[in-house]
Amino acid sequence: MSANQQGGRPAVPPSSRPHARPAIAVTTGEPAGIGPEISIRAAWAMRTRVNAVLLGDAAYLAMIAGEIDPAIRISALSLQAVRNGGLPHFGPDRLCAIDIPLDAHVVAGRLDSANGRAVLATLDAAIEGVTAGWFAAVATAPLQKSTINDAGVPFSGHTEYFADRTGTAQVVMMLAGAPAALPNVPQLRVALATTHLPLKEVPAAITVAGLGTTLDIIDRDLKARFGIAAPRILVTGLNPHAGENGYLGREEIDVIEPALAAARARGIDARGPYPADTLFQPKYLADADCVLAMYHDQGLPVLKHATFGRGINVTLGLPLIRTSVDHGTALDLAERGLGHADSSSMEAAIEAAIGMAAASPAGRNSTSG
Amino acid sequence: MSANQQGGRPAVPPSSRPHARPAIAVTTGEPAGIGPEISIRAAWAMRTRVNAVLLGDAAYLAMIAGEIDPAIRISALSLQAVRNGGLPHFGPDRLCAIDIPLDAHVVAGRLDSANGRAVLATLDAAIEGVTAGWFAAVATAPLQKSTINDAGVPFSGHTEYFADRTGTAQVVMMLAGAPAALPNVPQLRVALATTHLPLKEVPAAITVAGLGTTLDIIDRDLKARFGIAAPRILVTGLNPHAGENGYLGREEIDVIEPALAAARARGIDARGPYPADTLFQPKYLADADCVLAMYHDQGLPVLKHATFGRGINVTLGLPLIRTSVDHGTALDLAERGLGHADSSSMEAAIEAAIGMAAASPAGRNSTSG
Repeated sequence: MSANQQGGRPAVPPSSRPHARPAIAVTTGEPAGIGPEISIRAAWAMRTRVNAVLLGDAAYLAMIAGEIDPAIRISALSLQAVRNGGLPHFGPDRLCAIDIPLDAHVVAGRLDSANGRAVLATLDAAIEGVTAGWFAAVATAPLQKSTINDAGVPFSGHTEYFADRTGTAQVVMMLAGAPAALPNVPQLRVALATTHLPLKEVPAAITVAGLGTTLDIIDRDLKARFGIAAPRILVTGLNPHAGENGYLGREEIDVIEPALAAARARGIDARGPYPADTLFQPKYLADADCVLAMYHDQGLPVLKHATFGRGINVTLGLPLIRTSVDHGTALDLAERGLGHADSSSMEAAIEAAIGMAAASPAGRNSTSG
Repeated sequence: MSANQQGGRPAVPPSSRPHARPAIAVTTGEPAGIGPEISIRAAWAMRTRVNAVLLGDAAYLAMIAGEIDPAIRISALSLQAVRNGGLPHFGPDRLCAIDIPLDAHVVAGRLDSANGRAVLATLDAAIEGVTAGWFAAVATAPLQKSTINDAGVPFSGHTEYFADRTGTAQVVMMLAGAPAALPNVPQLRVALATTHLPLKEVPAAITVAGLGTTLDIIDRDLKARFGIAAPRILVTGLNPHAGENGYLGREEIDVIEPALAAARARGIDARGPYPADTLFQPKYLADADCVLAMYHDQGLPVLKHATFGRGINVTLGLPLIRTSVDHGTALDLAERGLGHADSSSMEAAIEAAIGMAAASPAGRNSTSG
């Protein structure tokens, strides 16, 4: 039924239209780092467009918010109350914080493993909330892996944790951002075939089957989450000059080319392998929806250089939408007090979560306030 | 003796002042590629400031020059005549080409190993000419390694050839350029600890001794050739996140940190190892005179992205000044005819050679015309 067929019903004001103000979970990360500050700043700055629900210690968040700007109003919600009654429908005059209490007093800049389990509980609450439909997506502030490990919980990163908790066998790490200097490349997206491995373990970790699954995930999520009808994926080689016809390594011939040929046979527009040093030139990037790099330091230096600290990290392949900042906890900045951290990447992560939720039929959810 | 003390001598016109118009050898590269075209275009565009002497088949170069612009005048010189009488002192109304005849007819875009030895002879003439003092420096257009190898001469690249022919045990490949989007970083310089190796051979190729020599060469040449009084060198790790305290690889702890400590003890301002993905962000680059990356695809994608095809390649550690374009022979462009190639990188290579010659006491040489 179109709007014109609604007859005598009163016009719906913009702020209560469905999808007008989606609810996004924001896990506030390591409490001793800049996570709480950038989460509050970003949520407050964007409050007219998004209900960015903070997950963390509500009292600690309220204290920091008060120091940032006394005008920031935070309403604490108990997790159990949200479980019972759903997210309340507040308007954009306040932020909501679902209270996940810390166990120890926080000293900015100083890690304390006593708080490790509370940090992990914010991730659990985010996953629970997306699954239950409270949130359309999750945006995560940086945490410190060692805080959680030192608390006795083996933890190798957000990405792996979300995969484990959602029963996802393979995910793909993708970073994205608007390159500062490339007007003809609105978004640079760089996905990785391998992530946090010692360099010497990279060549053996790249297999025909693994690359094939990676390409499937990228293709599927660029369509489903980014609304790109026919994604074009440009793929780097593993070796310098993409192996120079085998002269500088054979992985292109033995692994990457067969994986690309198989992907193309499945209808995926995957091209390459291309030399990584030339592929990131603007004239090539203009043709790509995503670059698939073979390893961390082949793809991320250029992405982070080009996006000037405003890049984001997206986990592809999950049954939920998860975005993240592309930086760490910055304990040194946090130790200097509030006012030194830049919330640009957090805002970009929330913005990307909004966009992905809007493009994903399954991910749509919003509060009406 | 200052200019004021020269008494009654007539004023020296600008065009014949020493160093006003240095002589730079330009080897024109693979004849079937874009090398001849970009060499001619660059030399002609810069002729009022530099005597860029073309090394190649003079008749072929004259033919191409005539097609580019009938106004371009080329005077052919025989190598033997220059040996006997030095470079003639022509003015900026013409280009000089030292004739190094090809052996086979050139078809643009089509490699012919019959011309391999002639290409190599242009490098020999350049080295001879710098050694003899005809040229202050050499700027090289791209060549095709396979053309020379197929001619029966084992050849692994310009860099290695110049090192061999000058008896230099270790050289360092450095790329440089002005980043398009970073006004606070006038020059981004990226040197490599390893160059054209299969990725799986990289970790073992990085040694404490080799890195130490690399740092010595960078430090010495940044002072002697670039006029930087106290060069600061920022060094990447080998592994993602610079190994994360050994969690993602031990080469930082076992190799890179000891090499840096030893270099600092020798008075070199070498810092790191830093995670490569964050090091190339503008706020860090602003503090660096050079970034030393551990391998090809860790350092060059960002350099070539940032400099938009206007980067150059410099070989450090040689007893002569050698700069180069940062791209290949582009046979596909050459095949489409003249007018498709961009001579920006060649101009930048000549410009860098001029600057390095001016900064190098030993490299000063110029023609008076």
